[in-house]
Parts: sequence; structure tokens; C-alpha cells
Amino acid sequence: MAGGDDLKLLGAWPSPFVTRVKLALAFKGVSYEDVEENLYNKSELLLKSNPVHKKIPVLIHNGAPVCESMIIVQYIDGVFTGTGPSLLPVDPYERAVARFWVAYVDDKLVAPWRQWLKGKTEEKSEGKKQAFAAVEVLEGALRECSKGGGFFGGDGVGLVDVALGGVLSWMKVTEVLSGDKIFDAAKTPLLAAWVEHFSGLDAAKAALPDVGRLLEFAKAREVAAAASN
Amino acid sequence: MAGGDDLKLLGAWPSPFVTRVKLALAFKGVSYEDVEENLYNKSELLLKSNPVHKKIPVLIHNGAPVCESMIIVQYIDGVFTGTGPSLLPVDPYERAVARFWVAYVDDKLVAPWRQWLKGKTEEKSEGKKQAFAAVEVLEGALRECSKGGGFFGGDGVGLVDVALGGVLSWMKVTEVLSGDKIFDAAKTPLLAAWVEHFSGLDAAKAALPDVGRLLEFAKAREVAAAASN
Repeated sequence: MAGGDDLKLLGAWPSPFVTRVKLALAFKGVSYEDVEENLYNKSELLLKSNPVHKKIPVLIHNGAPVCESMIIVQYIDGVFTGTGPSLLPVDPYERAVARFWVAYVDDKLVAPWRQWLKGKTEEKSEGKKQAFAAVEVLEGALRECSKGGGFFGGDGVGLVDVALGGVLSWMKVTEVLSGDKIFDAAKTPLLAAWVEHFSGLDAAKAALPDVGRLLEFAKAREVAAAASN
Repeated sequence: MAGGDDLKLLGAWPSPFVTRVKLALAFKGVSYEDVEENLYNKSELLLKSNPVHKKIPVLIHNGAPVCESMIIVQYIDGVFTGTGPSLLPVDPYERAVARFWVAYVDDKLVAPWRQWLKGKTEEKSEGKKQAFAAVEVLEGALRECSKGGGFFGGDGVGLVDVALGGVLSWMKVTEVLSGDKIFDAAKTPLLAAWVEHFSGLDAAKAALPDVGRLLEFAKAREVAAAASN
């Protein structure tokens, strides 16, 4: 990290999108101020920093705000080049492939998974079905991208690892809540091994929300949602 | 363009997403083979090149397929560096800002506009409302990004210009079909001027679908949709 850099992350600890940014910062070994937002009473700083969407995460670097999780991750990779792994490959074709799978994770896994977890009863089963289909496709993507190295980035983590890693604690919580094994070693052995490898990284240990704490949060939210219906 | 490059674009002329790729190639002055797909009977080459989504556009560069319009545009910008303008700025912060507005165009303008054009009756008015709100926000973005230069990229076109430019002919068609002025000089003077500037560029003239032909296509599609309901 360059001397004098002032980094402030506006977030909320359970957010998988905030977790992505924390992962990228941890992989780069960059320290920052972790600002926990109250999403029911957003700070003036958040509203001013992301006036368009008013959403977390926002990374404020020397006063300049960057918004949207994967845009922030790419920004971090572009700015902190002297430290930690390069999250994006240098080769333009490999970059395009990584961006393709990041978009896939968001559109085909994260969106259906949210529907599975938070949707109305009739939407839940469709969300679950789509999420499981995406996991199978991602097994193939991991086989292709890792080239035997264990990560989507090959021997080390890359952009796709950060994108998927951000939702990892939530996936584990969903496994407990639903009783369904999402990353099943019998069906998707590479992804199941990836979960172990990724979870074991120091940066992941530092950045991922604790599964037990997240489970309590998810249960409390379910109770609150049921009470308000 | 490097000697010996083989470029094939799998597309369909009315697609705004294909138009984005054509714009990027035109700005770079790169020649390519324009392959028109029949979307009701997709080619083996398309199915093989984009097995995950089976969608256009796909750019095949020396045999290697790249998918998703804005990923392709960034790929083109990364590969053809010696010719035409740089669509992405060098500065990581300015890159993040450009990517932010590209995502905004897709999520807040293109998605609601499609709902306005193709949605059920009750969805149309909501789509239209959201699209108009997005146009107002984009007026502010253009003011901020252009720094008086007339384009989102400043004095010259950049990533956001390509993203928005891809849908420009369709916006003009929508104005005719709906009777609503989307880029109204009285309400959004900078965007209205941008439409004129952008449409006047040689690359845009070469890449944008003809508005009259697109209008006929849109009308024919409306008739077909009405007949199948």
C-alpha cells in the first residue's frame, strides 16, 4: 500500500458484496477503515458517496468513492499492483473469460440463490433449481479455468474466486437452513475442494463473515420477515 | 489491426448488444466478418462458441470466442491498442467511473426500456417511467464525465458512449412508436447534443442500424407478437 493512502469501506458485515471487497483488500494485504452502516438509517457519507444507488459497498480512496462490488474489486486490483496477487490476468482473452464467469456468478447463481432464500414460496423452488444448475456449470468452469491449480485463477485466486468467495459463507448458511448440500463432493468434486482451499486461505479467514454468526442473523431476519407478512 | 487476425462476429443486425461490438470495431478501424445468425435456428458455430448462454453477440478472434457485449468491447479495447481511441481510460478511478455508468445504462435504462417496449400493458408504464428517470440521471453523468467535451469519454468516445450508442437507433425507433421524446433538448440538453454528435461520427454511421429499417422490424415484431397472444 502506498504511504498516505486513506481507505474507508462503507459496508455491512453480512453483505456478500461487501465481503468481496474485503476479500480483495485482504488478498492485497491493504489495511482500511471498516465502517459499518446502519442500512435502516444510512449515513450522510454513504448517501453522498453513492447518490445514484445509495447502496453498500462503497470504497472511499483518498476521498474518491468507488461503487459496485466487482467494480471496486477491479479498482483495487488496478491500484494496488505492487502487493498481493494480480486478481485479473494480464492476457486480454483470459480477462474476458474471467469477466464472463463473474457475470455468470452474479446472474445465474447469486440472483436465483437470493430468490431461493428470500422469495415467496412458489419462487423458492425455481430459485433453488436454477442455483443448483449454476453450480454444475461452475464445476465445468473451474475445471477449465483452474488448469489443475485449484482456483478459478489457476494456482492462485483471481477475480472469479473473489466473486464466488464473497457468497461462500452465505452458501454454507443456506446449506444449514435448507438441509441441501450445495457444494457436494459427490456431484461437484472440484468445487467442493475449492470451498476447502478457499476457506483455508488467511485472507479468506480474515474477510469472510463467521458462518455461525451469519446463521443467527439469517434466522433473525426470517423471524422478522414472517412477523411483517 | 495486426496482420493475420481472423475476426468473426456472430450477431443479428437489430440487436443493440451486437451494435455495441460493431461500434467498438468501427472505432478501432478493425475489419471483421459479419455473420448474421438466424435466432430461430442458431448455427452450430454459435452453440459451440457460447455453450453457456447460446446468445449473440459472440466475437471469435483467431478461433477463440468472447461473449457478452460489454466484455467483448473491453476485450477489443485491450487487444487493438495501436489503432483508434482508447475506450477505457488509463486511470483506475476513471475506469471505475466508466464501468459504473455502463452498469447503470444496462440496469436502469436498457432493462426498463425493454419492459416498456415488450412488456405486458401494466409493465409498460412502469418501464417507461424508469427509463425516463434514468435518462435524467444520465444527463448529470454526461455533465460530470464529459468535462465539456461532449462525450462520456470526454473529447472522444469511451466505454459509456459505446454502451449507450448501441441502443441509440432503438431509442429513436421507440420515440416514433410511442410518440415520446426520450432525448429531449429542453429537458436533457447535453444528452440531446450527444445524440447529434454521436450519430454524426463515421464509425456510428457505419455501425448503427438504420432507423427506418429498424422501425419496420419493430412494427413487424409487434404484429407477430399480437398474433401469437
